[in-house]
Amino acid sequence: MFEVAELGHKIKKRDYVTAEPELRTNLLLVQEALKEAPFPVLVLVSGVDGAGKGDVINQLNAWLDPRWVRAYAFGPMSDEERERPEYWRFWRALPPKGQIGLYVGSWYSRPISDRINKVSDDAELERDLTRINAFEETLVDDGALIIKLWLHLSRDAQQQRMKELEENPATRWRVSSMDKKHLKQYDKFRTVAEHTLRNTSTGDAPWIIVEATDVHYRNLTVGQHILERISARLQNQPEAQVPQPHLKPIVAPEIGEQVSVLGNLDMGKALPKDKYKRQLAKYQGALGELARQARERKISSIITLEGWDAAGKGGLIRRIIPALDARSYQIIPIAAPTDEERAHHYLWRFWRHIPRGGNVTIYDRSWYGRLLVERVEGFARQDEWMRAYTEINEFEEMLTEHGIVLLKFWLHITKEEQLERFQEREKTPFKQYKITEDDYRNRDKWEAYEHAVNDMVERTSTEYAPWHLIEANDKNHARVKALRIFSGRLEQVLNEGK
Amino acid sequence: MFEVAELGHKIKKRDYVTAEPELRTNLLLVQEALKEAPFPVLVLVSGVDGAGKGDVINQLNAWLDPRWVRAYAFGPMSDEERERPEYWRFWRALPPKGQIGLYVGSWYSRPISDRINKVSDDAELERDLTRINAFEETLVDDGALIIKLWLHLSRDAQQQRMKELEENPATRWRVSSMDKKHLKQYDKFRTVAEHTLRNTSTGDAPWIIVEATDVHYRNLTVGQHILERISARLQNQPEAQVPQPHLKPIVAPEIGEQVSVLGNLDMGKALPKDKYKRQLAKYQGALGELARQARERKISSIITLEGWDAAGKGGLIRRIIPALDARSYQIIPIAAPTDEERAHHYLWRFWRHIPRGGNVTIYDRSWYGRLLVERVEGFARQDEWMRAYTEINEFEEMLTEHGIVLLKFWLHITKEEQLERFQEREKTPFKQYKITEDDYRNRDKWEAYEHAVNDMVERTSTEYAPWHLIEANDKNHARVKALRIFSGRLEQVLNEGK
Repeated sequence: MFEVAELGHKIKKRDYVTAEPELRTNLLLVQEALKEAPFPVLVLVSGVDGAGKGDVINQLNAWLDPRWVRAYAFGPMSDEERERPEYWRFWRALPPKGQIGLYVGSWYSRPISDRINKVSDDAELERDLTRINAFEETLVDDGALIIKLWLHLSRDAQQQRMKELEENPATRWRVSSMDKKHLKQYDKFRTVAEHTLRNTSTGDAPWIIVEATDVHYRNLTVGQHILERISARLQNQPEAQVPQPHLKPIVAPEIGEQVSVLGNLDMGKALPKDKYKRQLAKYQGALGELARQARERKISSIITLEGWDAAGKGGLIRRIIPALDARSYQIIPIAAPTDEERAHHYLWRFWRHIPRGGNVTIYDRSWYGRLLVERVEGFARQDEWMRAYTEINEFEEMLTEHGIVLLKFWLHITKEEQLERFQEREKTPFKQYKITEDDYRNRDKWEAYEHAVNDMVERTSTEYAPWHLIEANDKNHARVKALRIFSGRLEQVLNEGK
Repeated sequence: MFEVAELGHKIKKRDYVTAEPELRTNLLLVQEALKEAPFPVLVLVSGVDGAGKGDVINQLNAWLDPRWVRAYAFGPMSDEERERPEYWRFWRALPPKGQIGLYVGSWYSRPISDRINKVSDDAELERDLTRINAFEETLVDDGALIIKLWLHLSRDAQQQRMKELEENPATRWRVSSMDKKHLKQYDKFRTVAEHTLRNTSTGDAPWIIVEATDVHYRNLTVGQHILERISARLQNQPEAQVPQPHLKPIVAPEIGEQVSVLGNLDMGKALPKDKYKRQLAKYQGALGELARQARERKISSIITLEGWDAAGKGGLIRRIIPALDARSYQIIPIAAPTDEERAHHYLWRFWRHIPRGGNVTIYDRSWYGRLLVERVEGFARQDEWMRAYTEINEFEEMLTEHGIVLLKFWLHITKEEQLERFQEREKTPFKQYKITEDDYRNRDKWEAYEHAVNDMVERTSTEYAPWHLIEANDKNHARVKALRIFSGRLEQVLNEGK
């Protein structure tokens, strides 16, 4: 696989000097066009030690207009990063639409180095690569252009490069002991790299291997390749709009047919006031103690609240809060996205608020908007919301794998109950502001929403993050049930960890 | 000072139940109006241990519409926070305009606790308080409404509260060993708190002391006070627009008069090509080595580049980059702000990019835009740009105090040289994109800009962060001079630290 990058490609300085200004002009022109395009560009520069990954990034930084490019590096994890799933740091470092992100080190660095250093075995590497493919697919599906460059040196060329760097006092520091170790591990590295590249070179995000022995050839090839890929993508915009072939279409049941999941709920469940008071106090007390223990042990929780308008999400939040330490939680209501959020993948705004170790984030509505309001109102295209089932499952898998307690509640009320609540809200001064014409309009689409909810529950109720359906016609019952589930789950996790 | 909060204020449960719904309605209504207002609200809840700071935050979270409120807590610093000036974490946690931030712990926590625990002495506390006042003034001047609540308990009431909490198994955990220590230190705490409150209760951001013995009284008083302050501010909007009385007006010299600072530069300075090549290599080599050492020792640098259009900022950046490790720097070009940036104080967007320990941030244009383009073009009101001199000096003081190497370059060219460069750019394909009609229009305001630059240099050239004026009619000279200054300064700092 790497043989093609050991042929001794070279470009004479004279030719380089002629070609470089034109390349630079074209890169700037393409950046100018990209600015208005609805997708970001990610350029990963990876490869063999000594191949000049840093020099290439420096060269790209010098060629490109700095206003629309940003370099991202990943050193050792900060504690803020360690307390979240591994990919949090990568989601933090995504360029907005219209801009270019340059990556020095990336989601490939840890998996490759772990395998070489026997921190991971073949099966674990495979798992890492599957995750990488899923991550890149998520970005590509959203329109991102991912350009992955692998700078290659033969073993001899690497040895030669190290020697040159070491002989020059100004560059000696770049040959760290780490690099020397890598030199010894050349064969091992080559095997792992080849395996990695082969298994992550997808049609959407292929690897390009660049022979890096000759600096001029290396830089021009890299620049030229980036130029061509962005240009091609700009001319080929509409392609991103059609459903991708790897999407299995979901056969949607007819609207109005017997709905299974929600239809099976016993909506008559209720809790009389005195029992409610006792049980509320009991579960709030339990939750308070369990949340404190979780906090001490740095176990985070995420509560995702979905439900019909007026189903009682706010009221439930107000019953959870008193059990929590005010320093430990945040409530994230999902309203209209900011323009920074709009310029990123729709999951980006949720990654932003993943809690630090031991903390709680309550999402008042969530990423499920993609499968509910965005689907029903047509804000997301069919291919977009269809692939969201998979994207969301992967996202939640990362959260739970990291040890985060993830609880998803659907607060369910009947259409009649909703109407009563709307009417009552209009009579209560401090609730009036909650009622708008939109709320009534949404009722007309009740069946379509019901349908979307059923699909959502069916397709995203996973072993690691099941949906909890809460019969909420009676608020007392709903609140106590949710509190019981939250504290029960916390207790279970705390006991497991012992 | 606290005596007034030891009078035994109480509210009967019956009265509370009557008053609470109305208060809540009004809070929601005021939030609704606030949404569209051009200022943020900060609510600090501080006070004696056991006074229920967390409960008050929980209550406010329950009363308010969560869509427009966000609670911020400050635990032990993360490493990302430790590697920046102390106030970075507070700037990170400011609500956008139209929203409310609730603070559990704040910029007061560390100074008070340090003084009580004798980590700091009186003089250091004074310094902390001065900084607090400057920070709050900066926010208030920008329109922020800061509501500072101090929950007070008498010594007996505190003792009583602790006992109650400890007797109840559900709340026992809240009486940490820390709290018990504080109980012992009640007198000391009271003295330090009184001093702190007296010295930070300004006309713009006064402290309100709330007796916290009775929970109903405490909560209603807090809610009522917040309601009144926001309402008053909403009705009183225009006041924020006029210059504040504490601003000393700057007497601006007549446009066209002899300009001193820039006028004194010897614009004939130049460096022949052969000398330039040697010196460029020399200083890039030196910078590479010094930057590596700084990186190892976690010393960060910030380079601020200002100058006329076409003065050569981009070219200089391209000469600095090759000396730096691609993993260690970021270039932040200051273009139009995003809407999240627009919703905050103008310094917020610069705080965002303060580098981690050992890294370099190069700002291509900077916070000085406030004193240059915003002043000259009228994007900032006179009182806004006038107070920016102080704000910027304080900002830079925090950076340098933290050990960050801050270098500010003004690249100076003559008006004639600029015209030549514009004309040449129009002939060079990869530079054409840089020239717009605006560039020519800006030339008409050359004198006004020159004037603003002189004021800027005079008023923000501090001992800790002096301006470096670079004669840039000759690019060779300019580049070598800037590189020499950067590497010289790094060398000095590295030697000091030994």
